[in-house]
Amino acid sequence: MSKKYNVAVVGATGMVGRKMIEVLLERSFPINELKLLASHRSANSRIEAGGKTYIVEELVPESFTGIDYAFFSAGGDISKQFAPEAVKRGTIVIDNSNAFRMDEGIPLVVPEVNPEEAFKHKGIISNPNCSTIQMVVALQPLQKAAGIKRVVAATYQAVSGAGKAAVDELHEQTRAYLDGKPVPAERIPHKGALHNYQLAFNCVPQIDVFVEDGYSKEEIKMINETRKIMGLPGLPVTTTTVRLPVVTGHSIAVNIELDKPLDADQARRVLSDAPGIVVIDNPAELAYPMPLDAADDDAVFVGRIRPDHSVENGLNLWVVSDNIRKGAATNSIQIAELLIK
Amino acid sequence: MSKKYNVAVVGATGMVGRKMIEVLLERSFPINELKLLASHRSANSRIEAGGKTYIVEELVPESFTGIDYAFFSAGGDISKQFAPEAVKRGTIVIDNSNAFRMDEGIPLVVPEVNPEEAFKHKGIISNPNCSTIQMVVALQPLQKAAGIKRVVAATYQAVSGAGKAAVDELHEQTRAYLDGKPVPAERIPHKGALHNYQLAFNCVPQIDVFVEDGYSKEEIKMINETRKIMGLPGLPVTTTTVRLPVVTGHSIAVNIELDKPLDADQARRVLSDAPGIVVIDNPAELAYPMPLDAADDDAVFVGRIRPDHSVENGLNLWVVSDNIRKGAATNSIQIAELLIK
Repeated sequence: MSKKYNVAVVGATGMVGRKMIEVLLERSFPINELKLLASHRSANSRIEAGGKTYIVEELVPESFTGIDYAFFSAGGDISKQFAPEAVKRGTIVIDNSNAFRMDEGIPLVVPEVNPEEAFKHKGIISNPNCSTIQMVVALQPLQKAAGIKRVVAATYQAVSGAGKAAVDELHEQTRAYLDGKPVPAERIPHKGALHNYQLAFNCVPQIDVFVEDGYSKEEIKMINETRKIMGLPGLPVTTTTVRLPVVTGHSIAVNIELDKPLDADQARRVLSDAPGIVVIDNPAELAYPMPLDAADDDAVFVGRIRPDHSVENGLNLWVVSDNIRKGAATNSIQIAELLIK
Repeated sequence: MSKKYNVAVVGATGMVGRKMIEVLLERSFPINELKLLASHRSANSRIEAGGKTYIVEELVPESFTGIDYAFFSAGGDISKQFAPEAVKRGTIVIDNSNAFRMDEGIPLVVPEVNPEEAFKHKGIISNPNCSTIQMVVALQPLQKAAGIKRVVAATYQAVSGAGKAAVDELHEQTRAYLDGKPVPAERIPHKGALHNYQLAFNCVPQIDVFVEDGYSKEEIKMINETRKIMGLPGLPVTTTTVRLPVVTGHSIAVNIELDKPLDADQARRVLSDAPGIVVIDNPAELAYPMPLDAADDDAVFVGRIRPDHSVENGLNLWVVSDNIRKGAATNSIQIAELLIK
């Protein structure tokens, strides 16, 4: 009989936490005991999953005693406080927050791209930013085939990346707007921001806070994390990240300069053969990826593959994936699957 | 007393046609007689404007007798059929359709960019594609200041670019989706397409039909028209055009390689001083352009101005404008204003 593991989900009542439970069961992760953890406020709430009812427990350092794998998705502060407690108790932490991603010695892993890094962990493995994950899954096979010289990315990001309250707000905003009523706005660009904006029938070119040089933190994450995951510390990348009135599924217009020629057909073949990617690309049939279609799927969908004649060896792609699954829950669980294989 | 003109609006009952009437009155275009023209189907309908009621007349070749300026916005086929009839009768045609834009000898004019071209007309002046207009207004001052080497643009386009029926459909779709009812979808990517897609809570990476190399016609228009308007036939430009669930206001993430260095502050200054542009760019105050704010304004709004460190002399911009006003109606009327000045 193959080994089974004691697994904890930290932030189990959140949008990503709930999806982690769903994906763990769906992928038949070999679970012995499943412990659901959350803040004091959410403790004792019930979560139904796989025909069983789980009682959420309050997260305390002792929660990790006997736990083999803990999936964290409760924000950076919780990760900073409790991940070391888990590691101290022998738990391997797979952390979906931003807390440790760029720390030297902490692997930042996308299983299709840098699986070998996962094995170098010292207790904590970071799960990358959602937009970064789907972009590097598409970039890596092209890097292998022809070398990447430069990337210009513009994102079209779903509101679920800002959490369940932001999704609820978008729905409320939309209905209020259609009914000609005052539109609530407290969640975009983020809760507690100096100004909050309506997202319904709008788009907001800010995700996370602004940090340096006029870039948002999301834009900087995409640049730095892409370089770390691909092991190309000097890779020239620039990004513009934008929030859309879409519930699930991030899209990215990715413009790439390659080192060597690779025509659209070759790129299509390279991408089709790569792990984790589904190519949907047939202009004659109006076939291309869209967020509504990508939702509830673990794949990274790539389409609109075409030459960019404005530069030598230029290529354009349109990359879409479910930001809560491949962008968060699924990728985290795939990391654990690597380790137990 | 200054001269007044007899003006016709062709396609007066459409979204752009109605906006043309509004903008003509708002800008106090010196009108003697205003004739509203449309197809047989819309003839005899009434349009209220500036406190007067106009009866729409059926468009026939004789409609143009005595007309000084005719603003066409009734689709390429109507323009091809009736613009020559108007010219024959001494009317100057300003055509918002795609019919003549790339024809040699037909000026394609954005008054902030190439006003001198307007005076070379032989009866017809074309008004460019909506996304192109707002992009070239932002590119031209940078071209003058530092030279443009290459442009990579990703658009975030409003549904009003697809006409009033598409706007109505987005509203219906959104309400149906929120109510859990079947979602009507007949207008996106365009009416009569092989497949039609839900735009509500989605984004669709196709605008107009696919033409060559995997590019949509909208993408090709942006490339070719930008080159023609800026008088840079070889300018390297690539585009990805995407339809969003936004009613009014196109946004564009514009990535630019300049010939010479121009830092973000210099670019901000150059753009602020340029005609037709309003710079909204203060990350500390979360100030940037958004389509909801740009609607009902004639300006091109530019923000998120920041260096792109992935290339020498790289610059990122976020350009937003009302696609029905500056992208269509206002630009057309500004062209006529040039001629009568």
